[in-house]
Amino acid sequence: MNLFVPDLIRRKRDGGVLEDRELRALVRAYTDGDVPDYQMSAMLMAILFKGLAPEELAAWTDAMVHSGSVMDHSRVSKRKVDKHSTGGVGDKISLCLAPAVASLGVAVPMVSGRGLGHTGGTLDKLEAIPGFTVGLPLDRARSMLEDLGLFLIGQTDDVAPADRKLYALRDVTGTVESIPLIASSIMSKKIAEGIDGLVLDVKVGAGAFMRDLEAARELARTLVGIGEAAGKRVRALLTDMNNPIGAMVGNALEVREAIDVMRGGGPADTRLLTVQLGAEMLLLGEAFDDASEAREAMERTLDGGDALALFAKVVEAQGGDPGVCDDPGRLPAASGQEAVSAPSDGFVAGIEPRSIARAAMEVGAGRRVKEDMIDPATGVELHVRIGERVSAGQRLATIHNNGVNQAEARDFAREAFEISPERPEPPGMILDRI
Amino acid sequence: MNLFVPDLIRRKRDGGVLEDRELRALVRAYTDGDVPDYQMSAMLMAILFKGLAPEELAAWTDAMVHSGSVMDHSRVSKRKVDKHSTGGVGDKISLCLAPAVASLGVAVPMVSGRGLGHTGGTLDKLEAIPGFTVGLPLDRARSMLEDLGLFLIGQTDDVAPADRKLYALRDVTGTVESIPLIASSIMSKKIAEGIDGLVLDVKVGAGAFMRDLEAARELARTLVGIGEAAGKRVRALLTDMNNPIGAMVGNALEVREAIDVMRGGGPADTRLLTVQLGAEMLLLGEAFDDASEAREAMERTLDGGDALALFAKVVEAQGGDPGVCDDPGRLPAASGQEAVSAPSDGFVAGIEPRSIARAAMEVGAGRRVKEDMIDPATGVELHVRIGERVSAGQRLATIHNNGVNQAEARDFAREAFEISPERPEPPGMILDRI
Repeated sequence: MNLFVPDLIRRKRDGGVLEDRELRALVRAYTDGDVPDYQMSAMLMAILFKGLAPEELAAWTDAMVHSGSVMDHSRVSKRKVDKHSTGGVGDKISLCLAPAVASLGVAVPMVSGRGLGHTGGTLDKLEAIPGFTVGLPLDRARSMLEDLGLFLIGQTDDVAPADRKLYALRDVTGTVESIPLIASSIMSKKIAEGIDGLVLDVKVGAGAFMRDLEAARELARTLVGIGEAAGKRVRALLTDMNNPIGAMVGNALEVREAIDVMRGGGPADTRLLTVQLGAEMLLLGEAFDDASEAREAMERTLDGGDALALFAKVVEAQGGDPGVCDDPGRLPAASGQEAVSAPSDGFVAGIEPRSIARAAMEVGAGRRVKEDMIDPATGVELHVRIGERVSAGQRLATIHNNGVNQAEARDFAREAFEISPERPEPPGMILDRI
Repeated sequence: MNLFVPDLIRRKRDGGVLEDRELRALVRAYTDGDVPDYQMSAMLMAILFKGLAPEELAAWTDAMVHSGSVMDHSRVSKRKVDKHSTGGVGDKISLCLAPAVASLGVAVPMVSGRGLGHTGGTLDKLEAIPGFTVGLPLDRARSMLEDLGLFLIGQTDDVAPADRKLYALRDVTGTVESIPLIASSIMSKKIAEGIDGLVLDVKVGAGAFMRDLEAARELARTLVGIGEAAGKRVRALLTDMNNPIGAMVGNALEVREAIDVMRGGGPADTRLLTVQLGAEMLLLGEAFDDASEAREAMERTLDGGDALALFAKVVEAQGGDPGVCDDPGRLPAASGQEAVSAPSDGFVAGIEPRSIARAAMEVGAGRRVKEDMIDPATGVELHVRIGERVSAGQRLATIHNNGVNQAEARDFAREAFEISPERPEPPGMILDRI
């Protein structure tokens, strides 16, 4: 079609609605390099101000999906369900959730990302397992999905190239913070995975991209709307991100905690999130039709070792050392342990997640810039939970480090703790379900 | 300074105010090619939505002024005052205004543009005079200002290059229609002329860029604010542009009408606008301090021939044939005359300026695209004015043409006339003064 981009920009700028074919042609032409960055960045800014109507967003996202290849898992007869988290500090849920759900008869074609912000992403955590590779050829991944019902890989270059190009442009043009643009970026990659259903963990609070419940609800509704327009079953949980998840922040440390959860242990909040999100996946995957039965099944597979046994097989299939499942001591460990102690008696009233993440980044658990190398052994281990009574001098956290920036990390971690004379309200975990 | 552009874009997008040094650095870096178009277009769209505060606009415009060379007329002791019109159909006022004002002791360093939209600009009109050149070397222009108090030239490439680059970007990114961006574009070029004062003719109505009085008032206030922040004396008149100005639309035809005005004749509205705008220039230029005396002086110089005598000298100094002043028959004339007749008896209730402009463009008086050649002889001559009683078949207009598209032009011109059984209210001419 004959596309006159300035007209489209003006129409969106003035609050108008663009047609399905116009949006598809625009995304295609931009991906092909036929629409220059300077027109697309003006359009993105207009979208940031004026939004996209549901039908516009469906067309825009679908054009992003079809800008690259869409995975075909039709040979796998099971329902295919994935989970996506908008990102939190200490969020290792995917590592224990995916094997647990797959062990209960729903296929999980999990494609994850690298770390954004201070801490590592799921791929970085998996790579803390010696030998583990996330860059599997697609046919290998597909046969893992057939045989084991699960793979854990990274995004390939041919998935939603429009999103990669748009994301890079948004990053440098002040157009990241737009709910329709965020939502289409997330959903285009997930829909291209060839899934039937998707569970979204939308984080809300000080440690999350969305600090405010109403904005998070709008994002969740937008994500669900896009998924449903694409014929997918989608459920979103809004979960609290005012404190780190679990006790571990750092790549090998988080793998260790995930293994604990798959042994029936682990911190209560990590287990609860795993069970709740897993139950939603089992419902979408039609393995269960009753929520409490789905939750009980999740608890059984974690407590009985089925999830861990499947995880070991996946680790082995992806070149990793499955021995870490029985002996987490085989994971990389840091040589230094720096203590963070309580300054006074009181109750732990808050653990600021961004400060903990920053502490972990200082010792090498995250990236300052994209090119930084991660030290998988490093990170922060929390010894106390919100509401716990502590005495002055008691150890609150340990900075696992290899001699780099441990003092800076300790200062950031120390700042994170709010010690109060009064016992705080216990934080809510699941804030809403959409 | 260390400029992180995405931060500036986000700040403006969120309604914040950018600092003086940030805006200057941004405009400079963009002009130098150190800030890419895709960042500037996002910034322009953010400005379109959020505006620029007066102090931001002053810094932004000043940076545009100093992106190139600023003319220095300090050797000319007279006050230097120019006029700028936002553009209307049949607007030949500059041609008779500038010599009239200069003949009364105020220097007019007039730098004009080519036609935008359907009809020619002041430069195109001047070039209808055989031999006339608008591309004078700056030192020649400067000595004309000393000797005659006037030059009539085109913009050189070294004036406000930031504006040229920004304007080209705005044109293709849907960011033209922003009052601060329009105002800074106009004022940066005018301030770079080295003027002391500026009179603005802000056109309002069907044939103008601003169709609505309130928007035009806002533009006028913004223009005046920028000028005053730059230490210039600025006055804006808001004038009606619901009908063409005067009787002639087309380049040589408009020169002819301007000469008529400088002979004490011409249509009443062309003369009135010339007198009013000229009086404002004389007041700003401190040649008069009483408005009615300034108007009377304008009338005297038009009626007494002083303005025309000076115009003849300027034409000669710029290589043109000064004989046109005594004998307008030396101007190019078209071979064909196509009549437009009244379809019925009644009163002329409206003459739609865009249709007249389109008719003139069809026969070669304006440009469809930048590269089009203009035929200086062609255009539309109106034989009736608003409120005049006409009979069916009476000639309303003549299409002066050289055999190109005369039928299309006649149809457009015919559409322009509204003939009504009732006598219309006479249109106002000067709507406001700011």
